[in-house]
This record gives sequence, structure tokens and C-alpha cells, in this order.
Amino acid sequence: MAAVTIIGAVMMGTAMCWPLADRAHTVRLVGTPLDEDIIRSIRRDRTHPRLEREIPPGVEPFFAEELPEAVQGAELIISGVSSFGIDWFAQAAGPHLQPGVPVLSVTKGLADQPDGSLLTLPDVLSRRLPGISFNAIGGPCIAHELAARRQTAVVFTGPDAEILSRLRDLLAAGYYHIWLSTDVAGVETCAALKNAYALAVGLAVGMMEAAGPDGLAHSYNPQAALFGQSCYEMRRLVQLMGGGEGNVAWLPGPGDLYVTVFGGRTVRLGKMLGQGMPFREARRILAGVTLESVEIVTRVARALPKLAARGLVDLADFPLLLHLDEILNQDKPVAIPWERFFRAP
Amino acid sequence: MAAVTIIGAVMMGTAMCWPLADRAHTVRLVGTPLDEDIIRSIRRDRTHPRLEREIPPGVEPFFAEELPEAVQGAELIISGVSSFGIDWFAQAAGPHLQPGVPVLSVTKGLADQPDGSLLTLPDVLSRRLPGISFNAIGGPCIAHELAARRQTAVVFTGPDAEILSRLRDLLAAGYYHIWLSTDVAGVETCAALKNAYALAVGLAVGMMEAAGPDGLAHSYNPQAALFGQSCYEMRRLVQLMGGGEGNVAWLPGPGDLYVTVFGGRTVRLGKMLGQGMPFREARRILAGVTLESVEIVTRVARALPKLAARGLVDLADFPLLLHLDEILNQDKPVAIPWERFFRAP
Repeated sequence: MAAVTIIGAVMMGTAMCWPLADRAHTVRLVGTPLDEDIIRSIRRDRTHPRLEREIPPGVEPFFAEELPEAVQGAELIISGVSSFGIDWFAQAAGPHLQPGVPVLSVTKGLADQPDGSLLTLPDVLSRRLPGISFNAIGGPCIAHELAARRQTAVVFTGPDAEILSRLRDLLAAGYYHIWLSTDVAGVETCAALKNAYALAVGLAVGMMEAAGPDGLAHSYNPQAALFGQSCYEMRRLVQLMGGGEGNVAWLPGPGDLYVTVFGGRTVRLGKMLGQGMPFREARRILAGVTLESVEIVTRVARALPKLAARGLVDLADFPLLLHLDEILNQDKPVAIPWERFFRAP
Repeated sequence: MAAVTIIGAVMMGTAMCWPLADRAHTVRLVGTPLDEDIIRSIRRDRTHPRLEREIPPGVEPFFAEELPEAVQGAELIISGVSSFGIDWFAQAAGPHLQPGVPVLSVTKGLADQPDGSLLTLPDVLSRRLPGISFNAIGGPCIAHELAARRQTAVVFTGPDAEILSRLRDLLAAGYYHIWLSTDVAGVETCAALKNAYALAVGLAVGMMEAAGPDGLAHSYNPQAALFGQSCYEMRRLVQLMGGGEGNVAWLPGPGDLYVTVFGGRTVRLGKMLGQGMPFREARRILAGVTLESVEIVTRVARALPKLAARGLVDLADFPLLLHLDEILNQDKPVAIPWERFFRAP
């Protein structure tokens, strides 16, 4: 039994309460300043309004300003913020982190640098807060399903195999299966990109819905073609990042992409765009929804030309991601460049 | 414009009529002895009873006994038989095949040898009918959708790049996108195995359906874990077959698996088994349905112990395929071996 503090209480962060509580750990759940409603709801009647579920007995909710108290004596910190909350996390939690107390993060994303280099988020945090062990979770896991104790298989990644083993010992449950990988670049690149590419597969769903009822019944060939090109481009980006290509053949690549295609908001946006709605209109309708997909497409598409100029990538390998960027950031209509797919498989 | 003869008129063979007719080729569609009803229906009112669609104008239907006439002067033979029909194809069509007239096959499968070696079906045919160029189609393509002219991306594979280019020139259409690969082992191993592994993903769908309405709403984490393990095992088998691992990151591996999970009978069987129905009962209900999935699981599971004894594979890499074999051939109940997945990703 350990004391574990989760920081960030929206979906995935909170879902981690279930395996932790089932393993009889003491769990403290801290909301960010944007999660006040959630913490208030849990204090009132133990219900998480977004997960629509009572949180497990024993989990203690904390408001953001109570963070210093909530992390005291914790043996593990779980970061449950989105990629948009990573700055806040570093500022608010950073001063309270201690060497010897690892951080395990559910945040997905990559950060592009002025020269086009892409950094994983554990790298970003390690640079800002040296001396702390930053680890992350990859692989397919929808928060709702983890909270329902569905069979779930994930990958914990970090630079230190011993710390990873400790984390697995703390969290493994009968329904929460954990593999370990020290290939942070490979796992985290897939974890970030699946949001971009689930949007791409969603385009085909939307295109077929727009084509009418016959379209709805028969629409998997185009989705599968986009799924295949997504794997192709992910493999190229994993190679660029120096990760192991095997990641595009297990949980982090195709496994996580599969779950994300069915997992909600990313595909919802993809469908809207595929039906012909301009992004600015879709963004209005989805106001308030965290769009990790838009952020990761924008960042990678901003980085790729710089990397191509440095001779590190060939832009012709990324027709799908670059088209997503045209749709999202250049107001172009959807026109899948089928013939430019799979340049050198 | 060329004369093209399709042999085998069930689903995928017939669906090839659409790109061929749209390219203005002369198309002859020959039924096997099992397809008499289909050919009769087309002769009567041009309707294919299984595709539930009129076949394109100009396609000429032939009964099996008219095969010699139907192949005369053809510049390309398309084999549309299932893996169960490959012997019939070799016997009936073999004597009429000519060097210089390539065969392009939609058949998926592997043939296991007494020493455990696995042969691709183009290899099997090449050994039986030397001097003929055998090529095959891999990648995600549901016949119904090709016949509806949905955007479809496939891979033509064969040993001769020049012949492959000729085949693409004959068949490429605005909605039928063709890539070429001389990696027959890699493409065909994925094409065969996707039927086995779609069955595996279907188990999770069935398990969740059996768990009730809440299960139905939240069931993608386990499916995705099985999808990931499927890719892992496919990669190992592609390595064994000497194919390029990149195949498990584009159309033939995850792309084709994705489409097959949604494509009908394989997943239907998987769902039944996942709901707890013994295979012998499911087989009774599905009488008359071609179960490629059962055949490929049985063949590979028969080969693996022999290959392991020869030091060529490690059985611990294939817990999912071996469990499928237990369910299908040893009457065991479904008990997914989650903890034995991803031995060395």
C-alpha cells in the first residue's frame, strides 16, 4: 500500500483511481484550476460528472490550491493533465516534486522546437525539472472503460527499467495489464500521433455518412486505407525520432489507433470534417472540448518542412498528415490524396 | 482494352468485374461447380444473388463446364476461388493456362507442409503449374464495397515487377488504387493471417455483448489489446516467412485486419465464440459459410510446434493464435491469455 497523488481530474487521470483503489493504495485526486466543478461534484456526492460514475471509496478529492498538501508523502505522482496543461503542471506541481518520487503521466503529445526537432513530453518535463523521473503511459485505454474495469493493456515507458518495474508492481490489476518499454521515443511518438491519425480515419466515416444510407452500410475500405497510411506515416515518424519500429506493430501504434477511432471526440471532429463542414465551424460546435488531434497535427506539420530542409525527412512520406494540416489550418476542403499514399512501404 | 477471365464467382472474384468493366475490358465470369446458382441468376436477370447487385453491362457469365471457351484469348486470368477451391482451380483451369498470360488471385491462405513449413498460395500454384506467373492481391478490400465503387487501396504482389506494373495498368481505376510489392511472402502472410486475427478481435466483441448493455457501450480497450497482439504475432510470422516487417505497418497487416474486423462472417463467428457458444454449435449455425479463419488457424497451429522443434519459432510468441486453436479444435472455452501477450515487443 502506497500513497499516490493524481494531478488532473478530467477523464484519464481520474480513471487511474480504479486500479489504484483496487490495489488498496491511498489515492488523492487533485483538480487543476479548470477542474473545480469536478472536484466540487466529487466532494458533494462522490460522482464524477464526466465519467458519470461514483469514484471508488477512499479516493480523496483536492482543489488545485490544496496541491501542496495533497502531494505530501506521496510515493508516486500521476499527471493526468492534457498537453495543454503541461505548463501549469510544471509550474504548480514542479516545486513540490522530489527526487525518488517518480511521475507517471497520461499526457499525450509532442513539442516542436524552432529547428523542427520534436520532443516527447517526458523529455520536455525532464529538461524543465531535472532530477525527477518522468514516465508515461502509452497503448490503447479509453478512460470510461478503465473505470468500468474492462480488460485493458497498456505500456509504461521511461528511461529506467527498475523504476518501470516498481510502477507496474504498484498498478497492475486483474483487468489492467502493463508492459514495460524503455523506448520512450517510440512509445510516445505513437501515443501522440494516434490522435492525428484517428482524425484521418474519421474523415472517411464522415464522407460515407454524407453519401447517404448506402454509404453508411459500406464504408470500411476507405477507412482501412487511411488506417494503413496512418501506420505507414507513424512508422516513418518513429524512425525519425529514433524509436523502435516494432512499436508500430503492437499496443502503441495500431492498438492505440484502433481504440481512438472508436473513442469519441477525435473521430467526432473527423466525421464533421469528412461530411464537408469547415474546421472553423466544427471548432465552434466543439467549443470547450480538448482537441489534442488539432494540436498534434499543427505541431508536426509545422516541424516537418524544417526537418525536410535539414534532410531528415522526405515530405512525400507524409501526404495524409500534411493534408490534415491543410484542412485544419489552411481552410482547405477534404480531398484525400489516395495516389500519394505509401511512397516506399 | 483486354479480354479478362475471372474464375470463381462468389464475392471477391465477381467484385473485380467493376474496375475491369469501368476500364472497358471484355470480362468473362466463370462460376465453379459450386457457383451454378449464381451464374444462373446472372444469366436470368444480371443480378448477383450474394452481392445483391446487377453486374456491370458487358460481363459475360459462364458455367464451370464452359471454362475452356471462357479462357480462350484471355490476356489475364483472375482466380476468384477461396482457399478451399485451389485444388479445383489447379485441376480445372491448369491445363488451359498459358505462359505469358498471368494469373492474379484473390485467394487468401497458407499451406502447411509435413515439416511445418508454410507456403503461400502463389507458391503452391507455381509448384504445381510451373511456367505460369502467379500473382495475388493483398490489402483491405470488402467485395461489397468494391462493387459499390468505394475508395479502395490494395497491393498486387508477385515475383516479377514488370508483370505487376502491367496488371496495375490494366486494373487501376479512380476508386481502385493499386500498390505493387515483390515481397510475396510478406504480403501473403498478412493476407492469410488477418482472417485468424479478426476472429480474435471478434471474441472481445462477443464477450462484451454477453456482458450486457453497459458492455456493449464500452468494449474497445479489450478489442484494441487483441488488435495489438494480432499485429505482434503477424510480425513474428512475417519474419519467419522471410517477408519485410514493414508489411505490418501498412495495407496488408493492420489495414486488412481493420477491414476484416468489420467485414462480416469472420467476426460473426468470433462474436458467437466470445459469447460462450462452443465452436461445434457455431459451425452448425454457420453451415454453408466459407470459414477461412478456421482453416488458417488450424494450419498455422499445426505448423508452429514443428517449427518450434526445428528452432525456427518460439511458441511463446503466439499465445493468441494457439488459444484460437484450442477454442476451435480442442473444444476449450474462451479464456484470453492477456498476461502472456507481447513477450518481446
